[in-house]
Amino acid sequence: MSKLLIVGTVAFDAIETPFGKTDKILGGAGTYIGLAASNFNINSSIVSVVGGDFPQKYLDLLSDRYIDVSGIEVVKDGKTFFWSGRYHNDMNSRDTLITDLNVLEQFNPVVPENYREAEVVMLGNLHPNIQSSVLSQMNNKPHMVILDTMNFWMDCALEELHDVLKHVDVITINDEEARQLSGEYSLVVAARKIHDMGPKYVVIKKGEHGALLFDDDNVFFAPALPLEEVFDPTGAGDTFAGGFAGYLAKTKNYSFENMKKAIIYGSTLASFCVEKFGTERMQNLDDELIYERLNQFKSLTQFDIELT
Amino acid sequence: MSKLLIVGTVAFDAIETPFGKTDKILGGAGTYIGLAASNFNINSSIVSVVGGDFPQKYLDLLSDRYIDVSGIEVVKDGKTFFWSGRYHNDMNSRDTLITDLNVLEQFNPVVPENYREAEVVMLGNLHPNIQSSVLSQMNNKPHMVILDTMNFWMDCALEELHDVLKHVDVITINDEEARQLSGEYSLVVAARKIHDMGPKYVVIKKGEHGALLFDDDNVFFAPALPLEEVFDPTGAGDTFAGGFAGYLAKTKNYSFENMKKAIIYGSTLASFCVEKFGTERMQNLDDELIYERLNQFKSLTQFDIELT
Repeated sequence: MSKLLIVGTVAFDAIETPFGKTDKILGGAGTYIGLAASNFNINSSIVSVVGGDFPQKYLDLLSDRYIDVSGIEVVKDGKTFFWSGRYHNDMNSRDTLITDLNVLEQFNPVVPENYREAEVVMLGNLHPNIQSSVLSQMNNKPHMVILDTMNFWMDCALEELHDVLKHVDVITINDEEARQLSGEYSLVVAARKIHDMGPKYVVIKKGEHGALLFDDDNVFFAPALPLEEVFDPTGAGDTFAGGFAGYLAKTKNYSFENMKKAIIYGSTLASFCVEKFGTERMQNLDDELIYERLNQFKSLTQFDIELT
Repeated sequence: MSKLLIVGTVAFDAIETPFGKTDKILGGAGTYIGLAASNFNINSSIVSVVGGDFPQKYLDLLSDRYIDVSGIEVVKDGKTFFWSGRYHNDMNSRDTLITDLNVLEQFNPVVPENYREAEVVMLGNLHPNIQSSVLSQMNNKPHMVILDTMNFWMDCALEELHDVLKHVDVITINDEEARQLSGEYSLVVAARKIHDMGPKYVVIKKGEHGALLFDDDNVFFAPALPLEEVFDPTGAGDTFAGGFAGYLAKTKNYSFENMKKAIIYGSTLASFCVEKFGTERMQNLDDELIYERLNQFKSLTQFDIELT
């Protein structure tokens, strides 16, 4: 069975949307990635750090989905990373209210021995040096290294980001970040420039406007499923990445055609994520629900024009 | 051969984009719709009005593409409708600099005798009373009435717009206008509400983010083709509508499956429109170029997931 190594935050989130607000609930990129990837019947492990305040039941929730949590360091006298944010009425933009790094400030990732030969590595959004450190601990070059990042690291650790990008196969990034990283407005040109920085594949996430997958010669687009109601967008991008990485780890097929399917699986899982607060919806999925939604994606996008 | 009746402006445009600016050139919704539909080997006719200043060569340009111009009234001592606008750097928003209605102020559309039984009617963006007047001149109920409109008429002629919508099969509208007309933020809910106003099919245009087609039970999405460079977005929405209407008039098949193809043809033609200033690109297309781009749409959007 394939192995997927995930590095990313495991955290507390407090979320406010036009529909309501939460207390501190389970969050973090690593959590969303892990939950999404757990739908593919693969071995996965999350490398992260939490404080002594992190409830055992949250770790059990991950273990119950066959996610190896031995790489999640527990700093007994530390506090777990905490993020709080408020979404605007359009749900497309948000204000960060609180970012307490806590134990994340001293995070020194240690890859579990039995995941140092994982086929697929998903580097969640963290300081590029942490992402590099994980890669340097691998015994072999993984088949596929996927990296997520954000504008914050472009502002304050651009050189380190460029360093890690040289060792990455796929970058996932949103449209504004792609423009910032490349200095190009056209996403087609931006993808080409980012490709030249290292990643053979560039995935540009456009939120409610879908996602683009580029390689040197091809481009593929997947829309977001049009929903009656988006309840909480938190974690949608990480869920997308987790679905993408999980499907690739399961199939071990890294062709462009198969990557297209991975994008569709990622979009499908993300469409569930936004239906409830936090990780709630991602804790209660089964294959039947996922297949049903994959069929919705097919009817949403597939057409039949025979060209003469 | 099917007949397509088009009502819409035939005008002068002066356009400024980050790439340059034009003098007064050929423009107008009716022009773009007609040029797009002329790729489908159908009989079409434009109902419009121009002034004595409108060059014969522009009328010839339309006639040369087998568009009947007998419904374009020439008011000898009047001046042609003139619009001037400047696009912002992101090409997604623009300022209107000049709107001289001129002969359009007294426009009284007269449908040519031999187009009063047209199968498909495309009502370009004009005062809802003008759109109603055209429909009232038809001998029979057309198979398919498509209406384009804009926020301006929602602000100042909402009742008249609601009147004409009762007789319309398809409305094409952009996302912000769909939200305004329905009072709903979610486009899924907005489409349902607009459906209840009359149109069985609701097409929501999202510019560079593609287009959605809704009926009561189904939804289909077509992206805009990712382009290296958008040179001038003027007329893209009308070109999309013209391609949509032209394909339906050619095929006379009004099933949802065939409407999906019409959406793809509309998107394909719109992707050409934006590559040059004004109508320039639309004057120089052939089937081979269109087929090539349809194939690009297929590889952009089609995937193959077999569900068990």
